[in-house]
Amino acid sequence: MLEKTTRMNYLFDFYQLLLTPKQRNYMSLYYLDDYSLGEIAEEFGISRQAVYDNIKRTEMMLEDYESKLHLLKKYQQRQQLVEQLRKYLEELEGEKGPILECIDSLEKLD
Amino acid sequence: MLEKTTRMNYLFDFYQLLLTPKQRNYMSLYYLDDYSLGEIAEEFGISRQAVYDNIKRTEMMLEDYESKLHLLKKYQQRQQLVEQLRKYLEELEGEKGPILECIDSLEKLD
Repeated sequence: MLEKTTRMNYLFDFYQLLLTPKQRNYMSLYYLDDYSLGEIAEEFGISRQAVYDNIKRTEMMLEDYESKLHLLKKYQQRQQLVEQLRKYLEELEGEKGPILECIDSLEKLD
Repeated sequence: MLEKTTRMNYLFDFYQLLLTPKQRNYMSLYYLDDYSLGEIAEEFGISRQAVYDNIKRTEMMLEDYESKLHLLKKYQQRQQLVEQLRKYLEELEGEKGPILECIDSLEKLD
């Protein structure tokens, strides 16, 4: 299991378009821009508790999406396979340029 | 663009866990088991129009998820890259068994 902030950053990256604009705002300030709950509360003129509740709910939603779609899990499995592919490929003879390009593209597709 | 039934089958496959059990039921009977709207209506004791409306709404939801997460589009791009990888690999010399296994696993991960 990744450290919580890293995991939330990944999940946010994968599923942010399924959130409301308000949820995206709070999450982005809290996890990407490292604002405190108090700073977000001040910025939006609401209570610290309201920000906290919203972020907790959003975290649960992100975990719920992940439990259904497994985008982060599959991404990690894919990265591992791509790494292995590159390693095995080193041992082969011949023109590997096009193969490496394919592998790079696969990696970028997440 | 894939033919509509094929496309809906794919989208259903990718996003079905984001639907309600009722939506999953109707979609599965209609698209996978080839029931008619009338047969589904009879099965559940509701009007044909209600089944139709529900399925149309679900199709729109699936397209909305796809427009946000692009799971089908990325899947197709990945399949194409994997196919190309296999083709290029044929031209190389050496022990390709482990590489082919990696590629098979990548393909199965969708």
